Amino acid sequence: MNNKASALVVSNAIEQQNFDEAIQYVQSLRPIDIADILALIEPKLAWQLLERLPNRSTIFSYSEPNIQVALAQTFPRDNMAKLMGEMPADERADLYKCLDQDQRDALLPALAQAEREDIRRLAAYDERTAGALMTSDYATLGAQMNVTEALAALRLEAPDAETIYHAYVIDEQRKLLGVVSLRILILAAPEQLISDIMVRSIVSCVVSDNQEDVAKTVARYDLIALPIIDDTGALVGIVTHDDAMDVASDEATDDFHKSGGVSTMVGKLKDVSIRVLYRKRVFWLVFLVFGNLLSGIGISHFEDLIAANLVLVFFLPLLVDSGGNAGSQSATLMVRALATGDVVMRDWFSLLGREAMVALLLGGTMAVAIAIIGYIRGDEMVSLVLALSMMSVVMIGCVIGMSLPFVLNKMGFDPATASAPLITSVCDATGVIIYLFIASKFLAI
Amino acid sequence: MNNKASALVVSNAIEQQNFDEAIQYVQSLRPIDIADILALIEPKLAWQLLERLPNRSTIFSYSEPNIQVALAQTFPRDNMAKLMGEMPADERADLYKCLDQDQRDALLPALAQAEREDIRRLAAYDERTAGALMTSDYATLGAQMNVTEALAALRLEAPDAETIYHAYVIDEQRKLLGVVSLRILILAAPEQLISDIMVRSIVSCVVSDNQEDVAKTVARYDLIALPIIDDTGALVGIVTHDDAMDVASDEATDDFHKSGGVSTMVGKLKDVSIRVLYRKRVFWLVFLVFGNLLSGIGISHFEDLIAANLVLVFFLPLLVDSGGNAGSQSATLMVRALATGDVVMRDWFSLLGREAMVALLLGGTMAVAIAIIGYIRGDEMVSLVLALSMMSVVMIGCVIGMSLPFVLNKMGFDPATASAPLITSVCDATGVIIYLFIASKFLAI
Repeated sequence: MNNKASALVVSNAIEQQNFDEAIQYVQSLRPIDIADILALIEPKLAWQLLERLPNRSTIFSYSEPNIQVALAQTFPRDNMAKLMGEMPADERADLYKCLDQDQRDALLPALAQAEREDIRRLAAYDERTAGALMTSDYATLGAQMNVTEALAALRLEAPDAETIYHAYVIDEQRKLLGVVSLRILILAAPEQLISDIMVRSIVSCVVSDNQEDVAKTVARYDLIALPIIDDTGALVGIVTHDDAMDVASDEATDDFHKSGGVSTMVGKLKDVSIRVLYRKRVFWLVFLVFGNLLSGIGISHFEDLIAANLVLVFFLPLLVDSGGNAGSQSATLMVRALATGDVVMRDWFSLLGREAMVALLLGGTMAVAIAIIGYIRGDEMVSLVLALSMMSVVMIGCVIGMSLPFVLNKMGFDPATASAPLITSVCDATGVIIYLFIASKFLAI
Repeated sequence: MNNKASALVVSNAIEQQNFDEAIQYVQSLRPIDIADILALIEPKLAWQLLERLPNRSTIFSYSEPNIQVALAQTFPRDNMAKLMGEMPADERADLYKCLDQDQRDALLPALAQAEREDIRRLAAYDERTAGALMTSDYATLGAQMNVTEALAALRLEAPDAETIYHAYVIDEQRKLLGVVSLRILILAAPEQLISDIMVRSIVSCVVSDNQEDVAKTVARYDLIALPIIDDTGALVGIVTHDDAMDVASDEATDDFHKSGGVSTMVGKLKDVSIRVLYRKRVFWLVFLVFGNLLSGIGISHFEDLIAANLVLVFFLPLLVDSGGNAGSQSATLMVRALATGDVVMRDWFSLLGREAMVALLLGGTMAVAIAIIGYIRGDEMVSLVLALSMMSVVMIGCVIGMSLPFVLNKMGFDPATASAPLITSVCDATGVIIYLFIASKFLAI
């Protein structure tokens, strides 16, 4: 049964105050599936079911931010504060950031002191950094504990910690000394000391690190959780594997969109409003109108040549596009390789040399194809002009496409912004001028 | 210190048979970092260090396939068989697939019977399916065990299992009954029965499922490991969160490349040969040459019109590109939304309606821009022709860009193949014909 049908069943049951049936219906489902169903139900009804479910805070955490805010407006203040108290610290801080000032003022006093401080601290970190991604719900151990004591401590921490599979060993200044996995603890003898079994070579990130680097680190070292430290080396949070996976997916979507000439967009495509879609897309389209005018200016410069050789117009779209296409291939390869960390700045020279070779081969193949068509449609001179132009246009396109992402990266911009549209537009204009310039040398006006 | 410098230090130490120094140097590093250093050292030297490291099988598993094969050729047969015996089952099967027949024939007899069968079984699954991704190193429990017995069983399984954080409860036919997390086990009373504490609503995939769906499931439900069952419901393997994350990243790279007109390519950009790069890119480029010829044929049909109104050529690249650009934006949004599962087939109609609205607004904005330029450069008639053409071209581009990924998906193709190049080329040709057709109605020949 799909979610819409399920939502109908559940909302009917709640409307008839038949809560047992509604609970029965959802209790075999996973929290995220219940969250998806609740999103389709009126907030007032959804809230009546939610407060009766034992894992309500988990389900609520899985809801989309706009649903959370809608529910938060419906909930009585004290119940909402209680629910927020049960939420994981990172989700709670994210929700807090989505609330308006009135809602914040109403809710904050109803929260416990520790939770208030936790929210303020987590919400203060810059978006897209490790700090904004991490949770403060992690398990810690002392280096002098033995295994029995450590397991007892973990049992106490388990209800609140996001993961107890990795526990972090810290000193009085919360400085990170090591990490112990539950696997090691289970296998160790009861009287062994934590300081003897902990792993001391720890992979960690700093609160101010970019969330993309955090996700890359989690992926590279196959971690379940990554500890986050502040400038003094004190442990302040962890980023779990599932949050890292979400970041990696969001960043990939973001790069994908940018490469297609759409700016950074938050949310799912089907939930995004027409206004947002328009705003996110219009920039590149209008930018390209002006980019293409450059090609137009190039053309107008050679007006007499074109009037005398109308056959040139026939091949114009082809030559203009070929440079842009080859260039955007190069850029695509480079942008993704930079994003996944497969290439770094110092690889540039060796890659450029190889790219030139590839461009030579590609341009050569395309020059042969077009020379034949040019000969059929025009004469030897046209054929020669086309072949020479194609070679030059593809070579220059590839070099621009390969270099621009590196240059933007070096300048501190996101290389994905050196997207196909920008490169296409630069290569197109260059292509027109090269084509008509070569033609002007070989053909009579 | 970077990897190249480290590799130099380590390889010098090994050459002088100074193994203690080499081991000392690498032992504080993580396995994947050691693997990266070994990749830069001559296989003969790398192997001498590797066989002296206690976690050699983990390090070896992190090496790239081409390095593994190079090392496998250097290793004495029996040592190599021993190393393969220590590797995780999924990595071992992947290595086996990379070896040539001679190497397989030499190694197989040296492996234990169970390992040979395991390799044959895992290597038999189709590439890019759950079966090819999963490992057979998982922990199982019986439903009638109590918590103390279960913990004892997990301690025995721990050295071989990829994760003991989730253990799978199966019956005599290996049918999956439930799952128990180590967290629940640690918190439960020693005498509680597994059947009472296990979670019965299990998320699982089937061996033949696409690896992309496996990765999506792991991400959606925030799993550490996903059980894989065969057609009879029997448990045959698990896919761990780190392997799922790698798949998600590879699939994103793949879609990204396809959208830029590069076919599926295995390996890191800097390791790929010129020949492979050429082969992966030439198809789309030559395809587009012929695509653009369609535009050329459209142009040649209106040759007299162009000769009489050369100003039309000035705006030709602009109008041709605008449709393609708007269309590839639509396609970009749709391809990624289909890939992440944000939209499904039944959303098509509502999305199409919204896309038409967005296209109307975008086309309107661009029509205003171009009408002004057209008026300056030409006259009112040119301005009108340009505005009308721009509206039509953008609208049609968006509708094609939105529909093609859905159509390809419906036909069983990967929608990412409905990439920018294909859509650009279709929209370009349509754009030329619309533009010149509208012009022929308003302008004198």
